[in-house]
Amino acid sequence: MGNRMGSGTIFLPRRPGVLSGAAVVGKLEGEGPLGSSFDEVEEDAYFGEKSWEQAESTMLRRAFRCALQKAAISEKQVDLLFGGDLLNQCISTTFAFRDTGIPLFGLYGACSTMAESLALAALSVDGGYAEVAAAATSSHFCAAERQYRFPLEYGGQRTPTAQWTVTGAGAAIVGRGGRLRVTHITPGRIVDMGITDANHMGAAMAPAACDTVTRHMKDTGRTPSDYDLIVTGDLGIVGGQIFRELMTVEGFRLTGKYHDCGAMIFDPRKQDVHAGGSGCGCSASVLCGHILPEMAAGKWKRVLFAATGALMSPTSTQQKQSIPGICCAVALSGEEDL
Amino acid sequence: MGNRMGSGTIFLPRRPGVLSGAAVVGKLEGEGPLGSSFDEVEEDAYFGEKSWEQAESTMLRRAFRCALQKAAISEKQVDLLFGGDLLNQCISTTFAFRDTGIPLFGLYGACSTMAESLALAALSVDGGYAEVAAAATSSHFCAAERQYRFPLEYGGQRTPTAQWTVTGAGAAIVGRGGRLRVTHITPGRIVDMGITDANHMGAAMAPAACDTVTRHMKDTGRTPSDYDLIVTGDLGIVGGQIFRELMTVEGFRLTGKYHDCGAMIFDPRKQDVHAGGSGCGCSASVLCGHILPEMAAGKWKRVLFAATGALMSPTSTQQKQSIPGICCAVALSGEEDL
Repeated sequence: MGNRMGSGTIFLPRRPGVLSGAAVVGKLEGEGPLGSSFDEVEEDAYFGEKSWEQAESTMLRRAFRCALQKAAISEKQVDLLFGGDLLNQCISTTFAFRDTGIPLFGLYGACSTMAESLALAALSVDGGYAEVAAAATSSHFCAAERQYRFPLEYGGQRTPTAQWTVTGAGAAIVGRGGRLRVTHITPGRIVDMGITDANHMGAAMAPAACDTVTRHMKDTGRTPSDYDLIVTGDLGIVGGQIFRELMTVEGFRLTGKYHDCGAMIFDPRKQDVHAGGSGCGCSASVLCGHILPEMAAGKWKRVLFAATGALMSPTSTQQKQSIPGICCAVALSGEEDL
Repeated sequence: MGNRMGSGTIFLPRRPGVLSGAAVVGKLEGEGPLGSSFDEVEEDAYFGEKSWEQAESTMLRRAFRCALQKAAISEKQVDLLFGGDLLNQCISTTFAFRDTGIPLFGLYGACSTMAESLALAALSVDGGYAEVAAAATSSHFCAAERQYRFPLEYGGQRTPTAQWTVTGAGAAIVGRGGRLRVTHITPGRIVDMGITDANHMGAAMAPAACDTVTRHMKDTGRTPSDYDLIVTGDLGIVGGQIFRELMTVEGFRLTGKYHDCGAMIFDPRKQDVHAGGSGCGCSASVLCGHILPEMAAGKWKRVLFAATGALMSPTSTQQKQSIPGICCAVALSGEEDL
């Protein structure tokens, strides 16, 4: 039963496979550098629904169905579904999967939810508790903006460190076998360095990312050079730089290996997104729409997917609490490497 | 790897142990029929903090520490923590465990979260991914009331079917061995019968409870007579009666075996709680403060703990969505029965 290593990394002896992934995004994301990677780009912010919240559910359901189709797996074959989102009480997830009849474990890991859901889906398959499990996560700019900050009509000014909530959903199907495998999971612990600026989430999350990635390296005896890509969730441009510096202090050089989903999904020179993308759907759509297919195509063999989350709420911010960060890491590997 | 049965029940071959449980509740809960069962009854609704939200975090942390103490386990020995609550972005859980350094999987299962967290903690121990895992869940009447309904100062009228959010927290420590074991888990799927009355949650959740408990019985080949207690989370008095009737239609007689945490925690003849208790903390505190100790004392050998959740939000209700219900069931067994 020796599946635990050092400071919290879990080794998955049966290396469950990521059978497929799919991503559905909004118009702005479709216009970004990864636009052609996504399975579907929807021009209508409402996704044909009456509200942005329902739009998010529809987007998430579409990503899930697309992932199922790619894996040639039916809804009925999915034993367990792990999912979550940013909306209060996770209603995007609930309403996305209300009619599927699939047993659901609802999650809340803020923007780290794609890694959290993938990690638990992988554990459930590795342990034999599911033949097939799914991980699904989403965010929607308009729904998130009015919940966390201001109604869009207010037209609030944004600071340079602010990030842009991605309208995007990602879903991955996990089962046995396949070309891409989950080899390790390093679950996140809360790290709170006292940042209180809700427009500077990257800074709040970077120390958590450093904690998780450092533990992962120490537990596995690996270094960044053992990976072809180390990718954080949504630290953005500013937070990504902080993460890089923190890792250097820990003795890990990331040169040429590191990227951040929030910095990848938009082009800040052409798109007015300030410090980059954020939201559950950011790392979800970049992982499922871009990273998994590139791994399948052989571009990267080993990837460490380290999704980051800021666990505050508008209420905790109003009550002058600082912003707790968390980062859950999932190590993925191409077949040849196993 | 034959850990899956029929329509979704998971059999845990290593039967992880519930090493301890502890519950901390508020004043009203302390005055109820189970008052003397709880590890701590706090008279101050603020738990010494400045806000009800922070009070909830403190209550949850106290329950967790008490459970650790009972199991003679230190915080450092806990490999994984599964927790959640009702507040937006699950801030009670985040701030309760911010300083522990324990890897955290945040959950959202509405009032089913105690069963969801216990189920995942048990899976992680059963699969060898954790030596010791913890499950922790809470709700606070004042914090929930102002988030979901009205500020308390408003003094809104309540309908007879309305339930009273329990101020309570429960925590359980899961590891190997011990007298009480988790034998099966039946994860919940969403059941939505179109109920739209947010003051009638029992009715919204009863069909989900029926779905899960029926699947559990069919998958395991058991009948209600194989259990000493079948206990739902917080259907309350009205919802519990609906559940009983639905189970009869399915061919399962619950006579003398059935109870509901929401109906157990208050005495509606003496306490002004209408249809009974609700909230994550209801089933959490009744399980950890009452049921686990009674099982340890030999009163009940086999218990099916079926916590129920209503997965709506104020936003989904305003958007005229119906209330999706879910119910996660965990089968517990005393040692002699294994």
